[in-house]
Amino acid sequence: MNFASDNWAGAHPAITQALAEHSGGFATAYGLSDIDRRVEERFCEIFEREVAVFFVATGTAANSLSMALANRPGGVIFCHAHAHMLEDEGGAPEYLTGGARTHGVDGALGRVGTEALEKAIRQFPAEFVHMGQPMAVSITQATEIGTVYSLDQIAAISETCRAHGLPLHMDGARFANALAALDTTPAEMTWKRGVDVVSFGATKNGCWCAEAIVVMDPGQARDMPFLRKRAAHLFSKSRFIAAQFDAYFRDDLWLKNARHANAMAARLAGHVEKSARLRLAWRPDANEVFTVMETATAEELKAGGVAFHDWPAPYASLLGEGEMLLRFVTSFATTEEEVDRFGQIVA
Amino acid sequence: MNFASDNWAGAHPAITQALAEHSGGFATAYGLSDIDRRVEERFCEIFEREVAVFFVATGTAANSLSMALANRPGGVIFCHAHAHMLEDEGGAPEYLTGGARTHGVDGALGRVGTEALEKAIRQFPAEFVHMGQPMAVSITQATEIGTVYSLDQIAAISETCRAHGLPLHMDGARFANALAALDTTPAEMTWKRGVDVVSFGATKNGCWCAEAIVVMDPGQARDMPFLRKRAAHLFSKSRFIAAQFDAYFRDDLWLKNARHANAMAARLAGHVEKSARLRLAWRPDANEVFTVMETATAEELKAGGVAFHDWPAPYASLLGEGEMLLRFVTSFATTEEEVDRFGQIVA
Amino acid sequence: MNFASDNWAGAHPAITQALAEHSGGFATAYGLSDIDRRVEERFCEIFEREVAVFFVATGTAANSLSMALANRPGGVIFCHAHAHMLEDEGGAPEYLTGGARTHGVDGALGRVGTEALEKAIRQFPAEFVHMGQPMAVSITQATEIGTVYSLDQIAAISETCRAHGLPLHMDGARFANALAALDTTPAEMTWKRGVDVVSFGATKNGCWCAEAIVVMDPGQARDMPFLRKRAAHLFSKSRFIAAQFDAYFRDDLWLKNARHANAMAARLAGHVEKSARLRLAWRPDANEVFTVMETATAEELKAGGVAFHDWPAPYASLLGEGEMLLRFVTSFATTEEEVDRFGQIVA
Amino acid sequence: MNFASDNWAGAHPAITQALAEHSGGFATAYGLSDIDRRVEERFCEIFEREVAVFFVATGTAANSLSMALANRPGGVIFCHAHAHMLEDEGGAPEYLTGGARTHGVDGALGRVGTEALEKAIRQFPAEFVHMGQPMAVSITQATEIGTVYSLDQIAAISETCRAHGLPLHMDGARFANALAALDTTPAEMTWKRGVDVVSFGATKNGCWCAEAIVVMDPGQARDMPFLRKRAAHLFSKSRFIAAQFDAYFRDDLWLKNARHANAMAARLAGHVEKSARLRLAWRPDANEVFTVMETATAEELKAGGVAFHDWPAPYASLLGEGEMLLRFVTSFATTEEEVDRFGQIVA
Repeated sequence: MNFASDNWAGAHPAITQALAEHSGGFATAYGLSDIDRRVEERFCEIFEREVAVFFVATGTAANSLSMALANRPGGVIFCHAHAHMLEDEGGAPEYLTGGARTHGVDGALGRVGTEALEKAIRQFPAEFVHMGQPMAVSITQATEIGTVYSLDQIAAISETCRAHGLPLHMDGARFANALAALDTTPAEMTWKRGVDVVSFGATKNGCWCAEAIVVMDPGQARDMPFLRKRAAHLFSKSRFIAAQFDAYFRDDLWLKNARHANAMAARLAGHVEKSARLRLAWRPDANEVFTVMETATAEELKAGGVAFHDWPAPYASLLGEGEMLLRFVTSFATTEEEVDRFGQIVA
Repeated sequence: MNFASDNWAGAHPAITQALAEHSGGFATAYGLSDIDRRVEERFCEIFEREVAVFFVATGTAANSLSMALANRPGGVIFCHAHAHMLEDEGGAPEYLTGGARTHGVDGALGRVGTEALEKAIRQFPAEFVHMGQPMAVSITQATEIGTVYSLDQIAAISETCRAHGLPLHMDGARFANALAALDTTPAEMTWKRGVDVVSFGATKNGCWCAEAIVVMDPGQARDMPFLRKRAAHLFSKSRFIAAQFDAYFRDDLWLKNARHANAMAARLAGHVEKSARLRLAWRPDANEVFTVMETATAEELKAGGVAFHDWPAPYASLLGEGEMLLRFVTSFATTEEEVDRFGQIVA
Repeated sequence: MNFASDNWAGAHPAITQALAEHSGGFATAYGLSDIDRRVEERFCEIFEREVAVFFVATGTAANSLSMALANRPGGVIFCHAHAHMLEDEGGAPEYLTGGARTHGVDGALGRVGTEALEKAIRQFPAEFVHMGQPMAVSITQATEIGTVYSLDQIAAISETCRAHGLPLHMDGARFANALAALDTTPAEMTWKRGVDVVSFGATKNGCWCAEAIVVMDPGQARDMPFLRKRAAHLFSKSRFIAAQFDAYFRDDLWLKNARHANAMAARLAGHVEKSARLRLAWRPDANEVFTVMETATAEELKAGGVAFHDWPAPYASLLGEGEMLLRFVTSFATTEEEVDRFGQIVA
Repeated sequence: MNFASDNWAGAHPAITQALAEHSGGFATAYGLSDIDRRVEERFCEIFEREVAVFFVATGTAANSLSMALANRPGGVIFCHAHAHMLEDEGGAPEYLTGGARTHGVDGALGRVGTEALEKAIRQFPAEFVHMGQPMAVSITQATEIGTVYSLDQIAAISETCRAHGLPLHMDGARFANALAALDTTPAEMTWKRGVDVVSFGATKNGCWCAEAIVVMDPGQARDMPFLRKRAAHLFSKSRFIAAQFDAYFRDDLWLKNARHANAMAARLAGHVEKSARLRLAWRPDANEVFTVMETATAEELKAGGVAFHDWPAPYASLLGEGEMLLRFVTSFATTEEEVDRFGQIVA
């Protein structure tokens, strides 16, 4: 019963199988082989438009290089106050952008609030160099806490971005989970709502290490090959990422994996709701379930072989005396049986 | 007959097999799992000492982060005038070190010359800030042009480094090929000769993307976890690199692959020597053969289905009128039959 | 009646006179001349110990390079939530440190709170790379809002720094004002209380552009000449900064200027206290007076020829309906007559 | 008899006088005061067009920030192989551009050769990320060795720049000396010949520390205020630089100073030509005279109280056995009497 993180899971057998299929023969290095090109075209089909695609291998690289593309000196990135980019990337966005700052914006349930965003941007008067200049807005879809922006919410944020001349980035480390939750298409969830660049994550959803920076307007992507190389993120045997994506998109594996993970989260949430000893911190939309319980219950779960992370700050206000907030993450590798064993323990 | 580069080959079946074996189950993310630890220990055995090991996925990352570890403001890196780090890494060493410069040092047959190195370092007087300060020396083993430093040559260079208080880095993108060529041990070829940090490459020798930064004195590696994260090179599912190394070291696969590649290069060189139309530019030590021929012969090879790169600058002085210099690279995937078909064409 | 900022004042006549005196003749460039050396020695006398001194010309450079000296990858700088370094330096500390982040720490009256600092540092577990690593603590003396740390408060903060192995930096843009307010010595206010590096500002106190980075342990300053050069902050005619400091220290000009500015602030605060229409936001220690008044009064002042800045965020909670918070800054150039004319308007 | 460097001279009395005149009263900080604006307009008059002007205080800052404005990731700057930017700026251009590299281009007499430039740029094929991408061309006017580009030579280089879509920067640390040598106007020597950005130096020609980045097309300068602030090069009391320029341009002081320095160099060169023991390494155009003599003669000069720098590499091929190459620099502060005393010694 491992709900620690979707990146604790390994790779889906179809991904491994794809690597085996592509391991023979010779292919042009550095992203110029046939399979690289074919997968790039597949992205265009999936996004229903010409897009520029750049493979990298970590979500942090995808986010940081997306920001580097938007780069402005003294730049300020607006993202949720608890975004991965702000809290968990060890200074990479700052480093790979030459010192841009991440400015936390408040918002309920892990989503950047439109009014709070407007207010935050207005704090930076044009041409007042001392505070730096707004550079980009980044939203995380699905969010860090398992919720999802609705299409209207994305559109509202992009409207604010347009008004201030700022590009909108989507950190899609759990893109597929959000897509499945909204039952929509990549086009609807991104450029049709004004998203300019996506960190398209596949690692957490069944790949070993496959992420893509998808730039909706290829004309804006001119410098990306050099940004990626300069950060040492261009792979010689690039086909090993392409092969992962090839399998990922084949027969809708990516959507199946995401739907499965979401369903497992919903099932787990159901067990939480039925239990007298647990309560949901908030309703999960995607594949993360945040649950409040007493320390003793948490200990019992641990003793019972359940792996999870506790998630203290910044939601302490939700907790009563002696209570903890725990995060349970599901993935393609989670089984109904595991979830139900969890249910038995907490029943 | 693909001799374009050893990074045009895919992955050895044993590497792919290892990924399949490790794809199931859950493992702690970000390099803290059992297999990560076990492979790190394996490196210690192989190097016959306690070393600090950091997995990355591109050789450029290994080189650049090694330099970042040595970092000094206004720093100058001394390497061969045609080193990969100087000519082929798109500014990554400069970027990831905050602007260090790569200073090309001459030397015959792709090797940094000891006297030229001494002279180059002396051009930078202590405390003369305008020119920057010496920061590190980097040698490539095997070199960019398929030659290998002898153990004595390495020792001589490290002596110069010691005299100037500079760390010695080895770009080991083709470490195994050099090791096989010298028929020595990793310890003898590195720290016993004064090497401080190694970019230990496995990608070109049968892995998908497996490189390790090996720091001989773990006490010097304190900042590396942060340097790696800051550059977005820490992998969540780190075990997929560890698994590659696990298979790479099992049953001496790495040495077998390297010996095979070197033997194929020697066989190819033999065909060159026998041919009246070709000549060796220099004797190959490892898995690259540089050959001089007339343009017509090169065209004939291409027409015959042989893939290779031409290698114009900076060896033009070796060429007669109408001649070209071509590079042929062998790998674990090269077959005797391919090499001999090449031999038939040029015979 | 210009109370906009102490950097709106020009230069003290003695400073200008010193530049005239030193403008003739030839002197070794780049900080190696006799006067540079002599002024460096003067700093040692003033600090009662051997210190390393580096002239720069902006406070932002002094702060940013001080941080660059402390640099750790993924580094986090702890300073007050409203510190200049965090709010007003346009990304320079981030840029010149390769992406370090400034982490705001709360504390009453502009001072970093010792407990809040301890708590903030503890949020960064050792070796947890995702959040980066603590790198330095910076306090501003006098603070951004005209208060001053007591010697005991400085000692308490430095104790926390020691406990966590962090260097303590003092942003002394208004060093002399703080010194005058405490009626103490530079040694007592810095290294005797555990301060490691000082941005020693003279610009706001009567110079044109004279700042010095003072490193208490010269052995820690090895890289600073290169850091300064790399950031393009080494002056060829460095004596023009040295000459400013020469005059600044002669006959205690610096202390006289600071005492005068502080006295003018106290006099202005007296007028505020006597006025029925104004109140002090807090008691000023140095040369800045923060005053609450109604918008109409502020307009009246403006109409009467008084220059000042309003200071909205983040002290809104101090304000009643229709009230504003205004900042009045005094300097060496402020006259009693000006202050008293202000007093007449608000009486 | 100090011919060590034009930056060993202090400031012209008129410059010092201007600082005195402007030292009283209050002025808006950070470059927004009346005098800042007035001097910016003066630059427009001098350049006969609307230009964007940014004051800084070191030539290295002017050069590095000019390059930062042109910035492209993985960028390569083409300049003369012995340009200041490449040899003497301690990594500042590299640092402030995020790792751009300076690529030395050969050319006779200190000038970038047009053909060599074309050839150098062509070494970087479009979209070949491994080598980085061309980013800018920089020429030094007057050159490091006292020669000057003719207007036609500048035009020829800018034509090459246009052909490759590269901006052309002029390092004008000795701009006035070149202008005086060519007896032309700033407009003719810059934008009318295709120069896009100038580092307009005044420090070496009689100021304390006054440099300006002049961007010919203000529309291209949008990010410069943030670049300058981010590098900590925005001055609070910016008027002290403006005041220097104010005096510099008044009554053609700048041209008078430059003509004087050039005349002194010509006079000194005349003494060299008349001497049997010395010879000119090449004919000086501006205010630097490079002279070949035997070591004994150099020692005699030193003993006689003449200050100069020897200039060993890279002109060793000009020297006979036992000969040295020495540089003599004149400035506004050089007197005829000094030059003639030099003449007497070498006669």
